[in-house]
Amino acid sequence: MKLSLVISTSDAAFDALAFKGDLKKGMELARKIGYQAVEIAVRDPSTVDWNEVRNMSEELELPICAFGTGQAYLAEGLSLTHPDEKIRKKALRRVESHAKVATMFGAVVIIGLIRGRRERRSRQEVEDIFIDSMKYLLKITTDVKFVIEPLNRYETDFINTVDEALQLLGKINSERVGILADTFHMNIEEVDISESLKKAGEKLYHFHVADSNRWAPGFGHIDFEGIFRTLKEIRYNGYVSVECLPLPGGMEKAAQFSYEKLNRLMSS
Amino acid sequence: MKLSLVISTSDAAFDALAFKGDLKKGMELARKIGYQAVEIAVRDPSTVDWNEVRNMSEELELPICAFGTGQAYLAEGLSLTHPDEKIRKKALRRVESHAKVATMFGAVVIIGLIRGRRERRSRQEVEDIFIDSMKYLLKITTDVKFVIEPLNRYETDFINTVDEALQLLGKINSERVGILADTFHMNIEEVDISESLKKAGEKLYHFHVADSNRWAPGFGHIDFEGIFRTLKEIRYNGYVSVECLPLPGGMEKAAQFSYEKLNRLMSS
Repeated sequence: MKLSLVISTSDAAFDALAFKGDLKKGMELARKIGYQAVEIAVRDPSTVDWNEVRNMSEELELPICAFGTGQAYLAEGLSLTHPDEKIRKKALRRVESHAKVATMFGAVVIIGLIRGRRERRSRQEVEDIFIDSMKYLLKITTDVKFVIEPLNRYETDFINTVDEALQLLGKINSERVGILADTFHMNIEEVDISESLKKAGEKLYHFHVADSNRWAPGFGHIDFEGIFRTLKEIRYNGYVSVECLPLPGGMEKAAQFSYEKLNRLMSS
Repeated sequence: MKLSLVISTSDAAFDALAFKGDLKKGMELARKIGYQAVEIAVRDPSTVDWNEVRNMSEELELPICAFGTGQAYLAEGLSLTHPDEKIRKKALRRVESHAKVATMFGAVVIIGLIRGRRERRSRQEVEDIFIDSMKYLLKITTDVKFVIEPLNRYETDFINTVDEALQLLGKINSERVGILADTFHMNIEEVDISESLKKAGEKLYHFHVADSNRWAPGFGHIDFEGIFRTLKEIRYNGYVSVECLPLPGGMEKAAQFSYEKLNRLMSS
């Protein structure tokens, strides 16, 4: 297991300079604290000079382990299950461009909000479209891995639990698609967080941590001791990526507290 | 402590007959299982014949312990902190009508979603309006109690925790205003559910229970054993009201499972 920090950046599509500034600052902070990688979200990868970012990553010896895609949904309404085929195709092209960048960095592509919502459609209908979209993404890419992140009910009505994600993985049937479990969402949706991690087992490709209130781990009531025992039990060897609010005390302190807590748990 | 069941009814404003049907069915079910009271939500009390409801309640020897007000917010956008004074006044008149009915039944009036959202206003500004609204409601009513329910961040950005509610209670300064704590929301917002209940102490006037996934207590991971130990410790003697999804197995089964679990905890 390795520790990663989710870095919050400006939208590169609006301000490429600020994006690079935020990224550099975030990466330097992560490096200083001891994190072994960072994770970032990018709305539109075509607006960023990725060679420059790769140089930054190499200079700091800090890989980017995952790319978030949700901003394209939040800001532009793009979704892999959108009822309008034109928008769905635009979403597919967008995620394809995320996948290209992820390939360059050996990172995973997160399928979070970008999968869209059921709205009033049947589960079956949305599932079928989603599976088609995922199979298409697998066909037009090679090597890169996609991770489906169950999100809590307030963020989407499509794939809230590890169980639902596992059922879809069975239908997509590719080693290149796995699960991203997030403790904040799991605290709301899973009957038993550790049991769900065991069920995910070797399909757990990426892991987000925040406490029950989305503060740094240790500032809510999630049983991280139990969770790390489970992660060791299922021999999880991917990244444990801190995605929490800048609390307590702002981003730097939250990142520092998280690192200390998680590093202790990993080495105990 | 006494057990209550939140009954889901049709909107009486649209279909008074269906409302009464749902209410009767729900009250009979609650009575049959063993609940000692029920709780209902009403969008607009002026659309209901409350003498009829009182007869029903007396015949079944089943009090109504609380009135929810959130439907007026969800369906009509009425809120006690609305920036538009006209809408705010309408909300005040509406809650006044809830208070009249609640007085008739000796029930509490729930201040949940009806308090509104901060939106882009400062916390101070919204707090001031809210305190004014609550003081006005206290002035035009007698006896009836209001309970402020902290809700999780996805439902409102104004009053998410017991701490925030306690601070406002200090400013409203009336024995007729207390806290309604809800375990589903607490699981997301409170650092430590039992500690927050202890902080609420004698200001805890009403209590909602659902498990972490909002299923019946016992089907998620909330530590109800610990919570009931705390309720006994703080000598809570109000209602424990089940407000959960109709899961598992539909409304009747969820109500039955909840009763069995909570009754065991109360008597142990």
